[in-house]
Amino acid sequence: MDLLGVLAYAELTAFLKLAEDAGLLAPTLNDRAELSDVAATEYGHFRVLRDKLSSLGVDPEEAMAPFVDAIDAWHAQTRPRDWHEALVKAYVGTGIAGDFYREAARHAEESIRLLVDEVLADESRSEFVVERVRAAIEADPRLSGRLALWARRMVGEALSQGQRLAAIRPELAAMLAGEGGEDLAEIGRLFARLTEQHGKRMAALGLTPGG
Amino acid sequence: MDLLGVLAYAELTAFLKLAEDAGLLAPTLNDRAELSDVAATEYGHFRVLRDKLSSLGVDPEEAMAPFVDAIDAWHAQTRPRDWHEALVKAYVGTGIAGDFYREAARHAEESIRLLVDEVLADESRSEFVVERVRAAIEADPRLSGRLALWARRMVGEALSQGQRLAAIRPELAAMLAGEGGEDLAEIGRLFARLTEQHGKRMAALGLTPGG
Repeated sequence: MDLLGVLAYAELTAFLKLAEDAGLLAPTLNDRAELSDVAATEYGHFRVLRDKLSSLGVDPEEAMAPFVDAIDAWHAQTRPRDWHEALVKAYVGTGIAGDFYREAARHAEESIRLLVDEVLADESRSEFVVERVRAAIEADPRLSGRLALWARRMVGEALSQGQRLAAIRPELAAMLAGEGGEDLAEIGRLFARLTEQHGKRMAALGLTPGG
Repeated sequence: MDLLGVLAYAELTAFLKLAEDAGLLAPTLNDRAELSDVAATEYGHFRVLRDKLSSLGVDPEEAMAPFVDAIDAWHAQTRPRDWHEALVKAYVGTGIAGDFYREAARHAEESIRLLVDEVLADESRSEFVVERVRAAIEADPRLSGRLALWARRMVGEALSQGQRLAAIRPELAAMLAGEGGEDLAEIGRLFARLTEQHGKRMAALGLTPGG
């Protein structure tokens, strides 16, 4: 239930923040429309999760409430200052969050796991982000260092908020680490997988993970 | 083309503004989710219109550009100050805009008319708005006068921006008035229809059109 709640609030908030970035930062109407498309897709994910919670007899509000502070804090710490930061956030931020939820879902019951996979699978819409960021870096190579630092900051803030969540919801943390939650090797493998995925996204954008 | 352009920009902007209102003004997470649902539906409408423009070989950006100032000005003049104003705007504002577009589409070619009707038909999601506003007025009858004035202001601003658009895009104005654009009786009937629809929406919310 915690997994569905945190994912639902994350998707609802991603929707609202992406819409805000689209309205405030997009340089052209077509860019605004493209980022709005990513936002609307996140809302579609939220709808699936909310309906699942309701069908289980859970009030979505109650399921989401414990996670409001951590997710709001992450967004407050990662407010993009320009269009390129907004694009990288849409791609890298959404990617990191997706990896966490997918890891947690590995240890959930099958119907939940399939639902989470379904919600997270539909990431094709962010392809336009990759194209725009690569083109921007080609046009101005100095952008690369700044955007790599920006991406690293988002990861750092995600880990920090993740630890905060783990402290208040130990059950959720246990899901991430699996049954052998005490097994340091398992936690090591988890971080290796998260780092690998992040590295792939950075490479896709034409950025090096180290900055 | 003008009709599709103004409608596309109106839907894209409605999406972004409703998302903003949902994030800033909703008193509960479930309320935020409900207004986000209305917003996401507007985005779906935008997607249909943008795809239609693209399939006609028209750049959506170019089609929308002439209408940015008037629609942005309308939103700047009708920024809701609280949750109830946001709800009334979602219902009344969207409704007025829909009436205008439907009137203009009456005189468009059939494929466009059907498309506009399809985009505007899906208004069932705003039913939750009606319920919330009626419940709020029942709980605090003084709200009624303030919200009726607010709705009247939105109509006034819509007419004012509509006139501005008519001045810069006379073809669009001609579509509203039909072939007999010089016919005052026809314009009178148009306004009668718009007023009647607005009155129906006010009654649905439990408000009297006069304030």
